[in-house]
Amino acid sequence: GFHYTKPGLGLLEWMPAMELGRRVSIKTVGYHPTNPTERSMPSVLATTSLHDTSTGRFLALCEATFLTALRTGAASAVATEILSPPNASTLAMVGCGAQAVSQIHAVSRVRPIDTVLAYDADPDVARSLEARLTVSGLKIELVGAHELESLVAAADVLCTATSVDIGGNPVIPHVDTKPWLHINAVGADFAGKIELPKSLLEDALVCPDVLGQCLIEGESQQLSVDQLGPELADLVKNRSTLEAHRGSLTVFDSTGWALEDLIAAELFLDHAERLGVGMDVELQPLPKDPYDPYEAIKR
Amino acid sequence: GFHYTKPGLGLLEWMPAMELGRRVSIKTVGYHPTNPTERSMPSVLATTSLHDTSTGRFLALCEATFLTALRTGAASAVATEILSPPNASTLAMVGCGAQAVSQIHAVSRVRPIDTVLAYDADPDVARSLEARLTVSGLKIELVGAHELESLVAAADVLCTATSVDIGGNPVIPHVDTKPWLHINAVGADFAGKIELPKSLLEDALVCPDVLGQCLIEGESQQLSVDQLGPELADLVKNRSTLEAHRGSLTVFDSTGWALEDLIAAELFLDHAERLGVGMDVELQPLPKDPYDPYEAIKR
Repeated sequence: GFHYTKPGLGLLEWMPAMELGRRVSIKTVGYHPTNPTERSMPSVLATTSLHDTSTGRFLALCEATFLTALRTGAASAVATEILSPPNASTLAMVGCGAQAVSQIHAVSRVRPIDTVLAYDADPDVARSLEARLTVSGLKIELVGAHELESLVAAADVLCTATSVDIGGNPVIPHVDTKPWLHINAVGADFAGKIELPKSLLEDALVCPDVLGQCLIEGESQQLSVDQLGPELADLVKNRSTLEAHRGSLTVFDSTGWALEDLIAAELFLDHAERLGVGMDVELQPLPKDPYDPYEAIKR
Repeated sequence: GFHYTKPGLGLLEWMPAMELGRRVSIKTVGYHPTNPTERSMPSVLATTSLHDTSTGRFLALCEATFLTALRTGAASAVATEILSPPNASTLAMVGCGAQAVSQIHAVSRVRPIDTVLAYDADPDVARSLEARLTVSGLKIELVGAHELESLVAAADVLCTATSVDIGGNPVIPHVDTKPWLHINAVGADFAGKIELPKSLLEDALVCPDVLGQCLIEGESQQLSVDQLGPELADLVKNRSTLEAHRGSLTVFDSTGWALEDLIAAELFLDHAERLGVGMDVELQPLPKDPYDPYEAIKR
């Protein structure tokens, strides 16, 4: 993607995935951290297009800001289901922005969460979280910056999804955690942007979503390849690998996988078709003569 | 991009460009060489999206099959204007498909073309070319495969835009050409796909559109870097470089430049806005609360 500091700090990237013999999806996603405070717009804005690999035709375009939040939550749910204790009941959320909604929603679907502790550097954002989470029916207990250590210490599952500055310090302090703490580290998605202290990562089984990408822009950029565990997809396929780590500190390094976007877009479009939502647009009208590129403007 | 042979031979790629501080364009383009004969669809199908780099918002999406033909023709016109003799009057076209229309159209705008010789491996495609070129008002003289040598020998300007097989032999024979022949080599855009013989390239000043890309998928893949001339954009800026090559054999290796697509899309959308063409779609509705990704589905 393109990273830039003009007109402001931002990132626009494309995430392509192919289902061989069938479709290609390309998600274009922007990350502009000052959007919420300066323009009342989400920091992450995305769209996904689908293309037919038989012909190259453009099939569909869908809004993917919602889908990005949804699939990022879903990935954390899969990681939590595999890596956290089955009776995990206390969820700690650091960063209460848009991603927090789907993180808490998704994790609460796979674990009997009864306590949610939450912190955000912006008290207004923290205060509005509960109203945005009516879907989960959960109460949120807010904590202040001075209580971050006890929030981390109390958690069975911790999700981090902040807009911490690039090149800044980790948001999470390295304190004594519950031995079985599982962390979904969602916020690191930019070279130099990290949320967890290196010392904590070194004590944990760190599972990247996409190894090569995590080494560049995830929490894994603080580690070397030999310090990393298997990718989450490998764990799902070979759960026996997990036995050695049962009840120990684990981190899911979630930077976002293009395959998640392909699946999210396909499911979404199937639902849209079934429900009659969306709009048919003649975007790529086919000429009667495939050899006449000017036919469209002659009509 | 993705190259594949399942379900058939094809390519789907994305071509991003950024105007720093303003916009990003991403063209997604498919090349499926059996489209015209098997599905009566163009082999090249494309769309271009524009994104605002202040916020990451998706701004517009436009059909770019027409724009791709147009900008590829325009690039050849720039090369022809700079590299061919001012009185060039005989244009030879090899490959009479969709790209031939804009090649002949564009070249005839910058040179006093009065004779067009054309060849296509498919006689039906060759025969239909003149009817697709009413915009230029030019008559087309068709030649058969056995006359390819004399077509090349007669040309002041030669454009090649075929769907020759990947890994196949060059389409163009190396015969004695006019010393000042200028060639716009448009068809090579895939590793292993070439139209010109290596021996001819070695005798010519070869100007790539994008050096690194031409070495991978253009005619330049037959040469080493030190055998290549300057990029076309450098020639445009420093025309004095040209004096040494005045009246000699020249080749524009045109693989397609993402910047051309950015400019084509911006011009097209400006015209569309001015003419009231196109459709407003609420593709990325902004939530009232930038931190609530579920707002859209609550409405």
